[in-house]
Amino acid sequence: MTDSTSTPPASLASRSWWGWGAAAQALPDAECTALGALVPGSASTPLPVPDIAHLELPRVRVEPPPALAPLMSAAPEDRAAHTYGKAYRDVVRALNGDLSAAPDQVAHPRTEQDVVDILGWAADEDVAVVPYGAGSSVVGGVEYREDRHRGVVSLDLSRLDRVLEIDRVSRAARIQAGALGPALEAQLRPHGLTLRHFPQSFEFSTLGGWLATRAGGHYATLYTHIDDLVESLRVVTPVGINESLRLPGSGAGPSPDRLFLGSEGTLGVITEAWMRLQDRPRHKASATVLFGDIHAAMDAVRAIAQSGLHPANCRLLDPGEAALAGVARDGESVLVLGVESAHSPVGERLAELVTLARDHGGSPTPTGPGTEDAAAGTWRSAFLRMPYLRDALARMSVVTETFETACTWDRAPDLYETVRRRLGDVVREVTGAAGTVNCRFTHVYPDGPAPYFTVIAPGRRGDEVAMWDEIKSEAMRILTDHGATVTHHHAVGRDHRPGYDRQRPEPFAHALRAVKQALDPAGILNPGVLVDPAAAG
Amino acid sequence: MTDSTSTPPASLASRSWWGWGAAAQALPDAECTALGALVPGSASTPLPVPDIAHLELPRVRVEPPPALAPLMSAAPEDRAAHTYGKAYRDVVRALNGDLSAAPDQVAHPRTEQDVVDILGWAADEDVAVVPYGAGSSVVGGVEYREDRHRGVVSLDLSRLDRVLEIDRVSRAARIQAGALGPALEAQLRPHGLTLRHFPQSFEFSTLGGWLATRAGGHYATLYTHIDDLVESLRVVTPVGINESLRLPGSGAGPSPDRLFLGSEGTLGVITEAWMRLQDRPRHKASATVLFGDIHAAMDAVRAIAQSGLHPANCRLLDPGEAALAGVARDGESVLVLGVESAHSPVGERLAELVTLARDHGGSPTPTGPGTEDAAAGTWRSAFLRMPYLRDALARMSVVTETFETACTWDRAPDLYETVRRRLGDVVREVTGAAGTVNCRFTHVYPDGPAPYFTVIAPGRRGDEVAMWDEIKSEAMRILTDHGATVTHHHAVGRDHRPGYDRQRPEPFAHALRAVKQALDPAGILNPGVLVDPAAAG
Repeated sequence: MTDSTSTPPASLASRSWWGWGAAAQALPDAECTALGALVPGSASTPLPVPDIAHLELPRVRVEPPPALAPLMSAAPEDRAAHTYGKAYRDVVRALNGDLSAAPDQVAHPRTEQDVVDILGWAADEDVAVVPYGAGSSVVGGVEYREDRHRGVVSLDLSRLDRVLEIDRVSRAARIQAGALGPALEAQLRPHGLTLRHFPQSFEFSTLGGWLATRAGGHYATLYTHIDDLVESLRVVTPVGINESLRLPGSGAGPSPDRLFLGSEGTLGVITEAWMRLQDRPRHKASATVLFGDIHAAMDAVRAIAQSGLHPANCRLLDPGEAALAGVARDGESVLVLGVESAHSPVGERLAELVTLARDHGGSPTPTGPGTEDAAAGTWRSAFLRMPYLRDALARMSVVTETFETACTWDRAPDLYETVRRRLGDVVREVTGAAGTVNCRFTHVYPDGPAPYFTVIAPGRRGDEVAMWDEIKSEAMRILTDHGATVTHHHAVGRDHRPGYDRQRPEPFAHALRAVKQALDPAGILNPGVLVDPAAAG
Repeated sequence: MTDSTSTPPASLASRSWWGWGAAAQALPDAECTALGALVPGSASTPLPVPDIAHLELPRVRVEPPPALAPLMSAAPEDRAAHTYGKAYRDVVRALNGDLSAAPDQVAHPRTEQDVVDILGWAADEDVAVVPYGAGSSVVGGVEYREDRHRGVVSLDLSRLDRVLEIDRVSRAARIQAGALGPALEAQLRPHGLTLRHFPQSFEFSTLGGWLATRAGGHYATLYTHIDDLVESLRVVTPVGINESLRLPGSGAGPSPDRLFLGSEGTLGVITEAWMRLQDRPRHKASATVLFGDIHAAMDAVRAIAQSGLHPANCRLLDPGEAALAGVARDGESVLVLGVESAHSPVGERLAELVTLARDHGGSPTPTGPGTEDAAAGTWRSAFLRMPYLRDALARMSVVTETFETACTWDRAPDLYETVRRRLGDVVREVTGAAGTVNCRFTHVYPDGPAPYFTVIAPGRRGDEVAMWDEIKSEAMRILTDHGATVTHHHAVGRDHRPGYDRQRPEPFAHALRAVKQALDPAGILNPGVLVDPAAAG
């Protein structure tokens, strides 16, 4: 066995190995049962959470050389915690004790040189390396599914968690890729600065993960993806370290950073980045607007997205989603608006936004600047609690998962109606129950929204994953048929490969395979994600 | 000879073959002489503009097959007009009658299929293809300089100049790549829409050229580069047509569009794009602020760039630049501020900007909303007239050219001082005269400015190009030493290759060579630009 003194940082010790986030936040059995009762047809008792000590893990096939041994662990708890991401299908499989995809080793590099050394060894030994930030992937991004390597190492970057340098004048910081959201914000706060990238997974995902997957953050408009916050990247590739120049803007050839943003660990391991920061907001205001008609609400959101007013928050919840979050009843849609600024009062801007919403038939619940209105607060609590509720429902064999997309405004109403209708049909066929298909717009652009769908239906114990896969497959087909992307901010991973392969232009796919071959000639980096190796010869 | 009925569109017939823009706008000899007198040490008479009929053009080495003959011209005037871009060194060489780099043929495809056919023929026949929008490149982007092909075709896309489709709901349009700025805006105007991309070259450059070079437009903040206005691209590559999905945002793998944006004709020929449009602005206001100290002015601009107020215009002219444009004297720096909106009054925003400038020691010239103040107007006229003045000075053997860059704020003051001091020394050494090195900030970001430098010094007739090349080479060295980019929006082309090769991370260069080999296996597309072919084997 390898050095068992290699344990994850203390801050991670309390993490759930099978479900979302902090183990202590998981709902107790009684609450799972109560929650399951809200979904007619679901199981009457929760699936038990297995004890790792009683689970069978596959044999460890590779051992690190002595120089790397102190960085690696083959302890069952480490391997189990690094087997899956946090998709619904991951949680169900973990609950079922299926750890057949567990990595052989979990590496915890302490330095960039450790990363270089591990990649060098893995390439020599034909060992696959799966870069791992904090494992919040919901698309199979951290789960090895091939059968073409001698072994698999999960490369956990959580020890590279420091803010290394701050440039107060340019408002930028050099940050290590393994830093979790709260850790990096805590290091920026004393300087009055913030990255202000707050995905739902904020507490349990890392800067490197955000960059590798082109994550979407807090802002509903303007700066939505992490891409725009990047000044430069430092990436360990198997053929050398790729460090781009720190630049506020450039037109020198295709952007080097944009090749690695979204590369999902297939082209290299991001070890650090210079990130653009912002002053901490001092002025905030929010408001809620109710709509009797979802299409009127969409028109309002479009007008707002095209107004140049750049609200920080502009989330539209459809009637089902609003009811689920407890912020509306009676079939109303809810628009939650927020404006923020570090420099200027925002009351007037909020008033303009509310006026636009009212012009499109909305009924505002006005609030003054500096206050958070009740519906917005309720919705935010529900938002952060959602993954834990999802896990509780999973334990009750409820099929419950989300998928998200983006499309232009001309297609959005039809896409919304089609997903609701056809997916409703599929849910009925697959589960035998009505279920619910809800939608919210999480981000909105002048040329289109990013709809985010939630499916909830009672499943059959033992068939949950197959049932979800069938529903998801139809969802992907509808998205592709409507020219919508298979993912706006969750990434492609392995789960979205079929849809991604259809969506991606073929010459670009050809180019990407060439890049893969050039940067990762041994084909060890996150195999199966995004691209397959080019045919030999 | 090929079909001589192939002539460029009428709108292009009045273009200067040797210098900037419209032939009729070139300064007459007497004005050239008067202008030259302002630069002590320059020539006393203008270089004559040669008559193409009297110039020697290299022998035509390749003829198109009959099917393509109607699309091609080997007429001397076409070949001469497509030999160079519009850099200072291009203009001087054209004035000297040096057309040794003329293409063998100039192709004017009428359809995308024509482009496909021409590329197919060229690949079979080992003929280099240099994509040509309107030839405004100032970096050697359209000038073949290799000696490794059987012939060279300049692929002039000016006949693909239509707006094909408008999606009013999503505010987007499908536009052919050969459309000049005024032509595409004229087609959008009846719909109340605008692309609002106004580079200095607006009248004489095309959408495809902007996309291929990641051009910088009108806006000083927020949407500076054309990159952010792209919804999808359609690119003819030698291995197939690459069409990306129309999307408002996506996180599905590395952006396919970002590989082609900035590819400068080396990976494919952009034939059309879905572009994001905007409502035409109805509210405008501008103001001018004077600063006694350039460093205080830089601090003011930084505060504005970091304020989130997003001025449309935020151009800082240093004392030399301000004097040259006639908007200040006595060593003052001038900040031209502009705000625009299609939806809301902008007076308050302008007031906030002016307050920020005043807080940093500026003396505002206040103007009310809806008005254009005098200095801003004067500066804009001078701005659009500049290239014609540059050509006039070139005829007087004045060495006069610009270069531009971007860097983070922490490096900007030192970069400014170093360029002024060291380049001043080099100008003196090379020309024997003091000359001037001026600077303006054309675009500003929260994390850094894009400085744009202008050099003016008397040259020796016959040595102008060599003298400029020596000055430029030192300029590139200073930029590289300061971690600044070799170009913020002019592109790399052939002139910036040495600096670009130093700036670009080596693994990315390796990847780019692999992409080049994958998409352009015959190596016919704009050879010498951005990358050299990968070594065989």
